[in-house]
Amino acid sequence: MTILGIDPGTATTGFGVIRYEEGRLIPVDVGVLLTTPDMALPDRLKSIYDDINTLLDRYTPELVATEKLFFDKNVTNGIAVGAARGVILLAFAQRGLSWMEYTPMQVKQSVTGYGAADKLQVQAMVTRLLNLAEVPKPDDAADALAVAICHAHSHKISGLGRTRSRDNRR
Amino acid sequence: MTILGIDPGTATTGFGVIRYEEGRLIPVDVGVLLTTPDMALPDRLKSIYDDINTLLDRYTPELVATEKLFFDKNVTNGIAVGAARGVILLAFAQRGLSWMEYTPMQVKQSVTGYGAADKLQVQAMVTRLLNLAEVPKPDDAADALAVAICHAHSHKISGLGRTRSRDNRR
Repeated sequence: MTILGIDPGTATTGFGVIRYEEGRLIPVDVGVLLTTPDMALPDRLKSIYDDINTLLDRYTPELVATEKLFFDKNVTNGIAVGAARGVILLAFAQRGLSWMEYTPMQVKQSVTGYGAADKLQVQAMVTRLLNLAEVPKPDDAADALAVAICHAHSHKISGLGRTRSRDNRR
Repeated sequence: MTILGIDPGTATTGFGVIRYEEGRLIPVDVGVLLTTPDMALPDRLKSIYDDINTLLDRYTPELVATEKLFFDKNVTNGIAVGAARGVILLAFAQRGLSWMEYTPMQVKQSVTGYGAADKLQVQAMVTRLLNLAEVPKPDDAADALAVAICHAHSHKISGLGRTRSRDNRR
């Protein structure tokens, strides 16, 4: 089973693809979709939409999830990033994919067992759970992998909890 | 020349289509694209995106414009409506349409000559400028027509200013 996690943004959208096979979480791909401020907003959105569709074509994930956006102060930024999230969710709907969204606290709780974990703790646990040689860079890419792992856990995939517990006991 | 104005929303997106021909503003279509809260957000976005594409197919506007979103307090609402705006701008970009966005104050200034005009004054002027039998309903539809008129004015289409001045002198 293939799971795509997304951390939406207008300039930088993180993505993480994992597979769950025989009780193991296997990293497949991780990275960021980039747009630049010199592009008009509609063209940036088209770039994100096209890149997401390329990922969906390449990996045909059964499960998709995004990290929920939070903007305490900057509403303008929220509207802009909301637009990026919009075209991502559109791509999901066009393929009939069922989608879930998780708050940062839910992701932290799921990945580290501690909802107030800091960024470095989450990244360290993502690296361990996926047996990676090093922490994924940049942060948005690591965040997207964390969302994918959170979505795997929330689906209570058989054996996944054991994998995670084993890692926690190291 | 055909102009499409949009007032984006998740539940209600207003649209207004006008033509400019031989110095006159001619109403073509006005209405709202509706989605309901029982639909999942990605499906609501797909519905808005499909409806916008139907409008673009039907009227093939040369100019498109949206009313700029403002959320002083409710950031969550801003993120949701931002998603609707996102899929609308995506549809514009996919057809290579050049797009403009106007603040509510710019729309009021352009339509009534007074940036602090109230909603009823704007609706009355939209009705007069387009020579309509009655005020377009609901408000989101009238707002979208106002955006289309504002965009026509801002393009300084020859003769448009005269039409408007004549109306103002009635």
